[in-house]
Amino acid sequence: MIIGAVSMIHTVKNNGWQNARIAIVGCGAVGTYYGAKLAQAGADVHFLLRSDYEQVKKHGLKIHCHQGDFELPQVQAYQSSADIGPCDLIIVAIKATANDVLPKVLLPLIKENTAILTLQNGMGNAEFLAAHFGAERIMGGACFVCINRLAPGVVQNFQHGLIALGELQGAPTQRTKDLVELWKASGVPSQLEESLKALLWRKLTWNVPFNGLTIAAGGIDVSGILADENLAKIARKLMGELIQAAAADGVKIEPSYIDFQMDRTAVMGPYKPSSLIDFLAGRAVEVEAIWGEPLRRALAKKVPAPRLEMLYALLRNLCVVS
Amino acid sequence: MIIGAVSMIHTVKNNGWQNARIAIVGCGAVGTYYGAKLAQAGADVHFLLRSDYEQVKKHGLKIHCHQGDFELPQVQAYQSSADIGPCDLIIVAIKATANDVLPKVLLPLIKENTAILTLQNGMGNAEFLAAHFGAERIMGGACFVCINRLAPGVVQNFQHGLIALGELQGAPTQRTKDLVELWKASGVPSQLEESLKALLWRKLTWNVPFNGLTIAAGGIDVSGILADENLAKIARKLMGELIQAAAADGVKIEPSYIDFQMDRTAVMGPYKPSSLIDFLAGRAVEVEAIWGEPLRRALAKKVPAPRLEMLYALLRNLCVVS
Repeated sequence: MIIGAVSMIHTVKNNGWQNARIAIVGCGAVGTYYGAKLAQAGADVHFLLRSDYEQVKKHGLKIHCHQGDFELPQVQAYQSSADIGPCDLIIVAIKATANDVLPKVLLPLIKENTAILTLQNGMGNAEFLAAHFGAERIMGGACFVCINRLAPGVVQNFQHGLIALGELQGAPTQRTKDLVELWKASGVPSQLEESLKALLWRKLTWNVPFNGLTIAAGGIDVSGILADENLAKIARKLMGELIQAAAADGVKIEPSYIDFQMDRTAVMGPYKPSSLIDFLAGRAVEVEAIWGEPLRRALAKKVPAPRLEMLYALLRNLCVVS
Repeated sequence: MIIGAVSMIHTVKNNGWQNARIAIVGCGAVGTYYGAKLAQAGADVHFLLRSDYEQVKKHGLKIHCHQGDFELPQVQAYQSSADIGPCDLIIVAIKATANDVLPKVLLPLIKENTAILTLQNGMGNAEFLAAHFGAERIMGGACFVCINRLAPGVVQNFQHGLIALGELQGAPTQRTKDLVELWKASGVPSQLEESLKALLWRKLTWNVPFNGLTIAAGGIDVSGILADENLAKIARKLMGELIQAAAADGVKIEPSYIDFQMDRTAVMGPYKPSSLIDFLAGRAVEVEAIWGEPLRRALAKKVPAPRLEMLYALLRNLCVVS
């Protein structure tokens, strides 16, 4: 039962997800925010929670958002995926460092035709899920958002919110198109990606240098990277290595994309990437998904990536990795 | 006046340094140890001290050494180079991060034919002194030693002690040959180097990876670098970049030197390089001398050095640099 939600979704005609049962696995900032947007719009959303369960079960979710705050006083909250049972769509938003729990946790949620959308950082998550549940089920996405979890059940979204979506196995299908419409109907800007692989390579051109160098340089924010001409040069060259690796993987990224990324970083001010926040708090950092996997793909294609290789080696030592 | 010293030096026949007035500038572990060895052998050694002055003036020096402990209850100790006055030989052993004090501090020690021997870490120190006092005065050396300052006036030498020496301006001269003999007569193993430049490049093949990666990887010792296959690979590749840069600078180092350096590191156990000890204690690290200067020389010769460039950029942010 959803209380206080406006059923916008029912205005989406002939949409395969219209009456879908949806599970959110991983209710950190991203899972909570995007799940709450769907629930607010009337979707049948089931939240799998751990430490926040008692609070959310009693008091629901509060979302502070630049587009307007909202509250869901009562949500469908669970402590176990067995209690949720089979769903049509599973949205995976746990940290990639905890991927090893997914085969067991997702199993009770799976039925024939259950689709899985991973919104996790980095590369290799869709493939991991495919290996366990079949590639045909898997979609992937990237969230362009500045979001924080403030307290149990309380999330703040400062900026943006776009979800870009694609199919693991190739071009978009009807279900990905329908899912983009579902997000849009829920007030979430969404776009369809012709290639999930391209989406993830492009996103990594930012995460690899900025999430990585802010940690390796001792915990400075992105403005500190830009202000140091040596580090800014390394950031650009790391992007260059990723563009080469992406090209070898069949994804063309224009060299001018480096300027675009540097320019958009310049307006972020003293922003701390999520990995730096995790690092500073002593929490696990997604070293394999963000640095390890693109490095392995570069090396598999014989693309030299000396800076990525060194950053990965250092981060493996600096960070908690699981 | 030297008390308790055996005048071994007077057994060195026809040596230009036999009756030399010698100043030691920089009485950390290296300056203190090598100065004490000369003084013990009867040389006329004048120690310029800062924080340790009162202690050393009153109680002299104590050297714990694997070859046998010794004590110099009274040494010629000073707080100002003006009080020492002109010398025949100045041995510079201050940290390169404090080089900017040298023009003023050395001036009162200089007369016609005063020679200067720098035993400082890294590259660029001999050139810095040459720019201020004339290249013809300058010799350089490297100390292969495991040494620590335990307390004011107290130094421990755990292993080795070799000084290798050369002329800044080219091949060895009579004075460098005589200085090697002086060290030997003082019980310090010493060898003549045909090329100071080659000596320093070779020494940096170790200092660059091991002093640098132990800091950048979060404060692990050299055994931690060797035990991590990714970091050990980076260490080897950093050495490769230095070998390429040295080659462009006219210094040939065999690729097998990398194996030699890795093998000799393996027997060091959990050794902390001096830069790591400085870093962990919050003291200045010689980032420009050890990483900055070889990088600038590599880039000036158009030798790509991506790993050295990145390590330098990170260390500039991680370390106190002056």
